[in-house]
Amino acid sequence: MAKLKVGMIGGGGPGNFFGQVHRRAISLDDTREVVAGALRSDPEQAMAAAKQWGIQGYPDYASMIAAWKKGKLELDYVTIVTPNHAHFGPAKAAVEAGLPVMCEKPMTFTVAESEKLAALVKKGKVPFALAHTYTGHPMMMLAKEMVGRGDIGEIRKIEAWYNQGWLADAAEKTGNQQAGWRVDPKRAGISNCGGDIGTHAFVGATWVTGLKVKKVSARLNTFVKGRLLDDDFNVIAEMSNGATAVITATQIAIGYKNDTGFRIYGTKGSLEWHQERAESLLVRRGQSDEVLWIGGGFSHFTPAVASYLRLPSGHHEDFFEALANLHGSLERQIRLARGEKVPAPFPHPDAQTGLDGLRFIAAAVASSKKKGAWTNV
Amino acid sequence: MAKLKVGMIGGGGPGNFFGQVHRRAISLDDTREVVAGALRSDPEQAMAAAKQWGIQGYPDYASMIAAWKKGKLELDYVTIVTPNHAHFGPAKAAVEAGLPVMCEKPMTFTVAESEKLAALVKKGKVPFALAHTYTGHPMMMLAKEMVGRGDIGEIRKIEAWYNQGWLADAAEKTGNQQAGWRVDPKRAGISNCGGDIGTHAFVGATWVTGLKVKKVSARLNTFVKGRLLDDDFNVIAEMSNGATAVITATQIAIGYKNDTGFRIYGTKGSLEWHQERAESLLVRRGQSDEVLWIGGGFSHFTPAVASYLRLPSGHHEDFFEALANLHGSLERQIRLARGEKVPAPFPHPDAQTGLDGLRFIAAAVASSKKKGAWTNV
Amino acid sequence: MAKLKVGMIGGGGPGNFFGQVHRRAISLDDTREVVAGALRSDPEQAMAAAKQWGIQGYPDYASMIAAWKKGKLELDYVTIVTPNHAHFGPAKAAVEAGLPVMCEKPMTFTVAESEKLAALVKKGKVPFALAHTYTGHPMMMLAKEMVGRGDIGEIRKIEAWYNQGWLADAAEKTGNQQAGWRVDPKRAGISNCGGDIGTHAFVGATWVTGLKVKKVSARLNTFVKGRLLDDDFNVIAEMSNGATAVITATQIAIGYKNDTGFRIYGTKGSLEWHQERAESLLVRRGQSDEVLWIGGGFSHFTPAVASYLRLPSGHHEDFFEALANLHGSLERQIRLARGEKVPAPFPHPDAQTGLDGLRFIAAAVASSKKKGAWTNV
Amino acid sequence: MAKLKVGMIGGGGPGNFFGQVHRRAISLDDTREVVAGALRSDPEQAMAAAKQWGIQGYPDYASMIAAWKKGKLELDYVTIVTPNHAHFGPAKAAVEAGLPVMCEKPMTFTVAESEKLAALVKKGKVPFALAHTYTGHPMMMLAKEMVGRGDIGEIRKIEAWYNQGWLADAAEKTGNQQAGWRVDPKRAGISNCGGDIGTHAFVGATWVTGLKVKKVSARLNTFVKGRLLDDDFNVIAEMSNGATAVITATQIAIGYKNDTGFRIYGTKGSLEWHQERAESLLVRRGQSDEVLWIGGGFSHFTPAVASYLRLPSGHHEDFFEALANLHGSLERQIRLARGEKVPAPFPHPDAQTGLDGLRFIAAAVASSKKKGAWTNV
Repeated sequence: MAKLKVGMIGGGGPGNFFGQVHRRAISLDDTREVVAGALRSDPEQAMAAAKQWGIQGYPDYASMIAAWKKGKLELDYVTIVTPNHAHFGPAKAAVEAGLPVMCEKPMTFTVAESEKLAALVKKGKVPFALAHTYTGHPMMMLAKEMVGRGDIGEIRKIEAWYNQGWLADAAEKTGNQQAGWRVDPKRAGISNCGGDIGTHAFVGATWVTGLKVKKVSARLNTFVKGRLLDDDFNVIAEMSNGATAVITATQIAIGYKNDTGFRIYGTKGSLEWHQERAESLLVRRGQSDEVLWIGGGFSHFTPAVASYLRLPSGHHEDFFEALANLHGSLERQIRLARGEKVPAPFPHPDAQTGLDGLRFIAAAVASSKKKGAWTNV
Repeated sequence: MAKLKVGMIGGGGPGNFFGQVHRRAISLDDTREVVAGALRSDPEQAMAAAKQWGIQGYPDYASMIAAWKKGKLELDYVTIVTPNHAHFGPAKAAVEAGLPVMCEKPMTFTVAESEKLAALVKKGKVPFALAHTYTGHPMMMLAKEMVGRGDIGEIRKIEAWYNQGWLADAAEKTGNQQAGWRVDPKRAGISNCGGDIGTHAFVGATWVTGLKVKKVSARLNTFVKGRLLDDDFNVIAEMSNGATAVITATQIAIGYKNDTGFRIYGTKGSLEWHQERAESLLVRRGQSDEVLWIGGGFSHFTPAVASYLRLPSGHHEDFFEALANLHGSLERQIRLARGEKVPAPFPHPDAQTGLDGLRFIAAAVASSKKKGAWTNV
Repeated sequence: MAKLKVGMIGGGGPGNFFGQVHRRAISLDDTREVVAGALRSDPEQAMAAAKQWGIQGYPDYASMIAAWKKGKLELDYVTIVTPNHAHFGPAKAAVEAGLPVMCEKPMTFTVAESEKLAALVKKGKVPFALAHTYTGHPMMMLAKEMVGRGDIGEIRKIEAWYNQGWLADAAEKTGNQQAGWRVDPKRAGISNCGGDIGTHAFVGATWVTGLKVKKVSARLNTFVKGRLLDDDFNVIAEMSNGATAVITATQIAIGYKNDTGFRIYGTKGSLEWHQERAESLLVRRGQSDEVLWIGGGFSHFTPAVASYLRLPSGHHEDFFEALANLHGSLERQIRLARGEKVPAPFPHPDAQTGLDGLRFIAAAVASSKKKGAWTNV
Repeated sequence: MAKLKVGMIGGGGPGNFFGQVHRRAISLDDTREVVAGALRSDPEQAMAAAKQWGIQGYPDYASMIAAWKKGKLELDYVTIVTPNHAHFGPAKAAVEAGLPVMCEKPMTFTVAESEKLAALVKKGKVPFALAHTYTGHPMMMLAKEMVGRGDIGEIRKIEAWYNQGWLADAAEKTGNQQAGWRVDPKRAGISNCGGDIGTHAFVGATWVTGLKVKKVSARLNTFVKGRLLDDDFNVIAEMSNGATAVITATQIAIGYKNDTGFRIYGTKGSLEWHQERAESLLVRRGQSDEVLWIGGGFSHFTPAVASYLRLPSGHHEDFFEALANLHGSLERQIRLARGEKVPAPFPHPDAQTGLDGLRFIAAAVASSKKKGAWTNV
């Protein structure tokens, strides 16, 4: 099978994190390759970056998509890693052109944009994936499968969290670029902590269980003086089946890095997963604890999840492999649509997930302003 | 030094848990002994139980306290392990008589009772200890010392939890006595999960940090059909210094046993402790993680905490030893008052802690009824 | 039931560790009490120490045993916590007098003494327990039960270890009394590290599996200059069923405290246990890992082990409770012999275990001197 | 910088593990690519496999190397993933031709071959890397740096192990190809367990510490009936500085997957690392434990190690990334030799390491046959 050809939008700035991780995730399986890019917002810099990457450069995403439309460039999908406020433009353009999309999260800057985009995706039936990396980890996929087939019964309660410590001080005032845009309402939108990492906890609570958030009571804090957006995010949520979820995120937990995970309590048992020890999933049913591990050969994996495993047990797959799995799911959608024989894609986050996330954050911000009043999502 | 003589009130029923654990905690150090008891509410059964224990029996607490008053019985303190609604009577009687008290938690059945009792204790300057066992664990004591001396700076956020799974089904309908009284409003009061284990999480959040809870927004759930009290308890709290605390407890987390603990985030670092792996305390300051262990000889212990250690490092002290430490603190108060030379007692939970706990639960129940409205404690 | 009365031999020196831990282990259950003692080798100091403990004093063990013989002192058993070279005398005297014994390990100073003592115990059918504390932990007892009933099949390989770091420097030269006698051949015998902690690893390998060590190939090291005995101990052993055991101990592993445990590999599965996280036992059979926990109510405990549990799940029993269990097993033997109704005692280490341990160390020392030549035990 | 072009030798059989993992490790960083291959021993199958991979095929390694020699094929290095007995031929051919080599371990089938190859590499100054994957993990690299700069003082003792369970039954008789060749003396050589995984433990003990093994006393076992080679491997070793190492490996530890790691005890502290939780390194110095984590931004990394990190803290790199780091070190050697500006390569295992490993296994097999007699390496 020929490699899929990927066009990258954004990601070419010096030291850009997301550009590099997607590039590696695309390359990892040797079945996809980055061939073209509109890598920066400045046209000249975009061309220079592409040259440095050794790929076909374009001054902007519009001209890259146009080149593909005209048959002057072969592309199978685009990957969007621009700043948050610049997701909507290229995503809309690609979807309208019928070009599949891997989009970084949050999907767009506003709920309204997400509503438009999700509608376009639905209408055009264009493969669209949202880069919630952790959902690509086989143990998180397994958790979704287990909940889905009723292993732990009806869900009663969910705890989902994301603890970080890197914004405990005013890092944005000492030249940290990653901090700079995240706490700037113009570039980050209505929420910093909630939008940046609270959404990951939200996806843990909803994607794994298949439940929706109906309404929320929230308390957002800004602990660091002078900051305009939240750096701490606490939500009690009512789920679509009546379950309660406690969804929290913070950036002031000194020494915590990417401590995200979930505990899900059902009428028959419980599941617990931690991203920082992603290779195992704790299953509790009452007597002993069962610890399930990642790796080929284990009978606890369904074929759907097993089809994503690259290594036998005892050798772990982690961040890059999880992100590569999301690209892999998009790849499978594209190849299946062409009639190639590949396994079915796992139902990874899509445009609807993106829209739900934006709505959740908007409701939480609104509730917090109303002193925690229960607010519909 | 002669052993302190202890009178036990309650605890003599067949298979009674609290009676046995206090008896062991009293005996452990060979410096205290149970010598008398009014072990059951039925006078005849009380006398029979005392005979079986091999101690001096009394038909009721009043006659035991009276015997002591008249000089017919030597006693240094009483330990109250009656059902929750029967704490107030003997506690009041003992305190009014000037007899020191170790009282099981919750201190009383109602806030009003606790207010009276705390006032009496204060007025009479009677040594009074509340049996929040976990606070007797040296690593929880160390955490309090570290916060107190500013090791992690000003507190911004607290997470404190208690997860259990044993009431995930209607155990109260299948003859489980422990379940039976806990979910019965007549015997347990206004809250089951909050009062029984939420208070432990509350003590984790307040006793360790020295902060008070100012107001709460709560969502209490009853997941098991037919139950009249909560079996799930979720609170977002505002602390006296403006910090936010997320305090949760549940009894429907299947496979979770006594999973209680806390994470405390300050401006200089973080502390994390789990009761089910009580022997270590995680200290995070940003670069490496530091894991502190229990045991004599470690320089991280202050003399105040070190004076409670019985074993060198690598050998752990746990539940019984922690409870024995609470008795030890009461013992120290009593001995010091007599001019004996013993180390100063650690500031373990007292009548004020008990009153604060009752008020916290009352406020949470009220807030939950008002759909999470912020309610003063 | 009346409390058993215990006479203590040794243990009364200032700051003596073993005296205090046995005293607490005896008191814990409120069914045994120390009533008399010959607490130090110097008669006057012995009497003074007894007075301080508040018990009946004797100037030496001979007179205490004599007083019991003449009916002037009630005793049910003695506990021997003298220095290693002074175990044999009182143990022999007690056994010959028909008085049950709890003896600290190693049982005696020489193999010859142990042979005599084991023969006397056998002949006299006197209850005799050897204080290998860790074997009193319910999870180690459970491991023995599981191996015994064939849960992991035929044993092929065993790893048992004990890592400490407190003798990494010449602590014996800076006034550390615990270090002083251990590295002194006159007081510790032919081996320091092997005799002191290697025997614990040996017991892990043999008591749990029910296997004997047939022959050994050993390498003992002395890393700290000027030391006359080993501070590092490495043995490859052939077991009675042909299995191989790797038994190691060291005192120079800086930062390791009482890191002892075992891995046992059978034809059907594996068991792994660590003393420093004693509350769980890892059972591996190939697919998932099973983690079994301590605590009343778990179906994985046999009635024999469950009869030793004091707490429900989620609350851990550790060092004191394990030692109290050994006293409990001796207590059950004594009470059963009198016709009292108590559960059967668990087969804890006895005089034969003590003899086997001495022989194992002697063989290891001999093998090491012969450059690791395989040496029969 | 142009991508390095890699020729693959072996690895093209259906379901071949090593071919796929190296292919992914080569692709991951988007700076190297597989362009040609002699993927199977059968010429026709080799060509067919290359076609399937989408690369330039050759019927055998000789013709691929010849094509490069003649300038008909651009290559920067070859990766050898043939069966063990077929490493020497292509490695020798490549080195003699001056073409850099990444070679799977064990380096060759016999000590004699390794001696020849190491001499050729030395003479020709050809970049040569041995694929001991775990040494590419940043935490193992950090351990080497820490030992090298004296953080834990002079090394006294080493424990290094590798526990697996997949050969606990006669998997070779039920069609498991991976098992089949490993227990066949014709394809695996003189040792199965020692050669396959004992060498990893050996590299843990030597590469990290910089010490050599001087002599060994070994006991090899074959637990599964009918097997001609060892499936269990136990060595006590004397190191070049007088330290003792206990090096063990087994394939009959049911439920253990790739449980390899080390503990290193020095005069100032200890290091402990486990491959199955590779993201952290435990540093013990006596009081608290220090846990160091992988990830960009940590001050505990030297620039040499930091130059290999791809992700910030809290996101882990594991197996593929470690193997990619070995390719990266080879890449740096090649680019530096051309005058390109890249960071200095880390001193990863090379031909000398490979030779040392073969000699170690040979000495262990010899010692075991002589009943554990100490045997020079």
